[in-house]
Amino acid sequence: MSSYHSLLAKVHELDDLNKAAALLSWDREVNMPRAGAPERIAQMTTLSSLIHRLSTSDEMGELIESAAAELDGAPYDSNEAALIRLLRRTYADARKLPPDYVARSAAVSGQAREAWVRARAEDDFAHFQPWLEQIVRLCQEMADYYGYEDERYDALLDKYETNMKTAEVRAIFEAVKAELVPLREAIDRSPVALDDALTHQPYDVDRQKAFARTIATAIGYDLERGHLGTVIHPFATSFSRNDARITTRWYPDFLNPSLFGTLHECGHAMYEQGTHADLARTPLARGTSLGIHESQSRMMENIVGRSRGFWQAHFPTLQRHFPEALGHSTAEDFYRAINKTQPSFIRVEADELTYNFHIILRFELEQALLNGDLAVADLPAAWNDKMRGLLGITPPNDREGCLQDVHWSRPSFGYFPTYALGNLYAAQFYETAVAQNPTIAEEMAQGRTDALVAWLRENIHQHGKKFTPGELVVRVTGQPLSHAAFMRYAWAKFGDLYSLA
Amino acid sequence: MSSYHSLLAKVHELDDLNKAAALLSWDREVNMPRAGAPERIAQMTTLSSLIHRLSTSDEMGELIESAAAELDGAPYDSNEAALIRLLRRTYADARKLPPDYVARSAAVSGQAREAWVRARAEDDFAHFQPWLEQIVRLCQEMADYYGYEDERYDALLDKYETNMKTAEVRAIFEAVKAELVPLREAIDRSPVALDDALTHQPYDVDRQKAFARTIATAIGYDLERGHLGTVIHPFATSFSRNDARITTRWYPDFLNPSLFGTLHECGHAMYEQGTHADLARTPLARGTSLGIHESQSRMMENIVGRSRGFWQAHFPTLQRHFPEALGHSTAEDFYRAINKTQPSFIRVEADELTYNFHIILRFELEQALLNGDLAVADLPAAWNDKMRGLLGITPPNDREGCLQDVHWSRPSFGYFPTYALGNLYAAQFYETAVAQNPTIAEEMAQGRTDALVAWLRENIHQHGKKFTPGELVVRVTGQPLSHAAFMRYAWAKFGDLYSLA
Repeated sequence: MSSYHSLLAKVHELDDLNKAAALLSWDREVNMPRAGAPERIAQMTTLSSLIHRLSTSDEMGELIESAAAELDGAPYDSNEAALIRLLRRTYADARKLPPDYVARSAAVSGQAREAWVRARAEDDFAHFQPWLEQIVRLCQEMADYYGYEDERYDALLDKYETNMKTAEVRAIFEAVKAELVPLREAIDRSPVALDDALTHQPYDVDRQKAFARTIATAIGYDLERGHLGTVIHPFATSFSRNDARITTRWYPDFLNPSLFGTLHECGHAMYEQGTHADLARTPLARGTSLGIHESQSRMMENIVGRSRGFWQAHFPTLQRHFPEALGHSTAEDFYRAINKTQPSFIRVEADELTYNFHIILRFELEQALLNGDLAVADLPAAWNDKMRGLLGITPPNDREGCLQDVHWSRPSFGYFPTYALGNLYAAQFYETAVAQNPTIAEEMAQGRTDALVAWLRENIHQHGKKFTPGELVVRVTGQPLSHAAFMRYAWAKFGDLYSLA
Repeated sequence: MSSYHSLLAKVHELDDLNKAAALLSWDREVNMPRAGAPERIAQMTTLSSLIHRLSTSDEMGELIESAAAELDGAPYDSNEAALIRLLRRTYADARKLPPDYVARSAAVSGQAREAWVRARAEDDFAHFQPWLEQIVRLCQEMADYYGYEDERYDALLDKYETNMKTAEVRAIFEAVKAELVPLREAIDRSPVALDDALTHQPYDVDRQKAFARTIATAIGYDLERGHLGTVIHPFATSFSRNDARITTRWYPDFLNPSLFGTLHECGHAMYEQGTHADLARTPLARGTSLGIHESQSRMMENIVGRSRGFWQAHFPTLQRHFPEALGHSTAEDFYRAINKTQPSFIRVEADELTYNFHIILRFELEQALLNGDLAVADLPAAWNDKMRGLLGITPPNDREGCLQDVHWSRPSFGYFPTYALGNLYAAQFYETAVAQNPTIAEEMAQGRTDALVAWLRENIHQHGKKFTPGELVVRVTGQPLSHAAFMRYAWAKFGDLYSLA
């Protein structure tokens, strides 16, 4: 057996074990009784330690290198070369973190999460502060273990958005701010006021579930190779391209979470359903990066799911599911209701436009904390300052301010920016797709996504994690990521909705 | 760290991995889209190979022996001594099967299952025959690898019912036959005819689900430490004593499968919920044997769930769930409907009495096949002969005869007898329980099981797999397993129902 085939056999086994670990995690959210948590944590810990041991062994390193030598000269975009690149990177990264650090980080995160839950519930930042200080130190240590050339934040961002630099994100976000603040202000001044009361009415949960399956299928999510589960905090996960699952939550008096949550998670799951079969049982059968993954979910949630064409096509079906709530409304009423934009305090409830401000704020604060320019004790004030500057509003308390997200109870600085990058990638991909195939826009005007999904499959999904996000976006759109397509999209859509000049 | 503690750490890890493997399997039945099967099989194969490698390593053997030496003199019924006994046994057994045999067996079973599915669907025994011949040879090989003193079948039976001998089971089953055939004949001659039409009516599936949860809780299954899922072939499984799950199937026009299936699986799950917390993350936190496990499920399904007291208590609630179907019936009508007994072809549909004949038949045929006294080609005829002898009926075809069970598509001879042993253990345990605590019978007459479950927890559940079934039954009832308690139970119950002299 060649070295590459020996390596592939190991990679398959490790991937199988990773999928078993993912199932332990999925099941915890979807099925497990709460009482089962302690043993489940033990099971997850055992399996992830085992995976870490196997994937960072000296033997694994040697196997990667001898396979690499054997494959020398393989085309850059071959599966083999891509796998070697990815394995080299993840192997090197995994060995940079000392076991002591990994254990300490897990222990602190566990306790910090408890502290965060209580601090948020009681609106008591002081209770969380010492834990956040430890988290910041863990982030600093991690960055130093990983190493970086330009800025410390680069080392962390790289783990979610391979090879992307902080300076690059900063420049893009500055450009977004420069155009998005005026757009927000123009909307503020507009005499048009959109009303979202339609979405806040009683909506029978069973019928929400039925409708969610209908639109999931309509946009191209294959339920025969998927599964829809119920959870409190929705997510998507896949055990193979033939078993890529979504989860949703259901509110009896608010339609948006199930509707747009489902479309969002479908976007993620469709990405993994679309990875090429040849990549199965390898870490290449994944999305390229969090940002690119988010581009797929945001595209389905917003560009598709909050479009006029989509609701002209699907509103009659929605109406049949909820005749009491929607019997006297039109597709246009509904389209306007779901596109109301206004500054708000909570990121996960923010609309398509203002969402980006929430991310930019976190991106800036994370850097300040990481670089020591901002003391944790001063975070609440800094948060509120930025909220005023970006959104023109001041949170009434820290619960609706800097205590709102779970993310900072883990050393996961660098994660937040990928959410907004997803919006920007999505717009740039979509603009390219429509330029390359006008049928996409024609279908979209009729609420159909066949041509769009085919384009995504061909240009993005099938490649899985073969390319870095930077490589992929240039490959697909001909240029690096910029804010421009998103701003064109935003001005066109909201200019129309709010009758801007 | 002492050797015992080193061993325990390994045992915990292996148990965690076994639970992850069990989850892959549970999820396949409950949630997985069919399309996900190939990758899921790969995941299961990888994990079980890994578990096999770790649990049969030389290092593991040395660790067991050095811990055993260290613990020399520990009381027989201590957790430590029990764990060493169990590990020695399973370690030795696992090393007896050559890897080549294990791989061959898995491969043949996979194909034999496909062949069986088709053979049963098409009622074509000839299609299955060559595969069953291979299965018989695999059973013979396995018995020879494991080794035995008296008869070949002992080696296989031992894997499901530790230390029990074929001769013992044979003697007990002969005694059952000697008394059960006359009882069946007396019932045949009785002028009383029970009518089960009540159970065959439209029953709304959602209401079946609600009622299943109600009675599951009523008999003592803790849903806060469990989960009820929907499957085609029901089973119970546990990921810890705090996460012991059941599954049920729902027929829209037949109540029994959900009702008695749920009670049955609850009995299994309650056993594992009741194992002592000190046994957590070890293979001791399991039922002792398949037979003892089945005694718990059969007790809940039949002794509790088909009793007059139970339905006098719960029929009004059932009636409220299904006013159309049951509005004009009484608890006594229902009690009689669910206790109709008559010979039938299909084991899984058989009633509480005739079920045992189905098992005895299989037990006898398995031995004949294993010992070479019966050629596979002659199985259909032999099957039908025994059906006539035991039940007085002849299957119209092999689909309702020797092709009905999936079990023989795997080398699992020795498994079937544990089903009937479960009935016998259950009756013997129950008779002892009532003798030791008369409150149990008083509560049962009112449809309550608190005292019974407390007795089971104390005498059976908490011990998990610390004792062999033979040890446990003597410990609990003062004597070895016999047919006597079951026959007393059967004559009393069915003598009353059928007005026998």
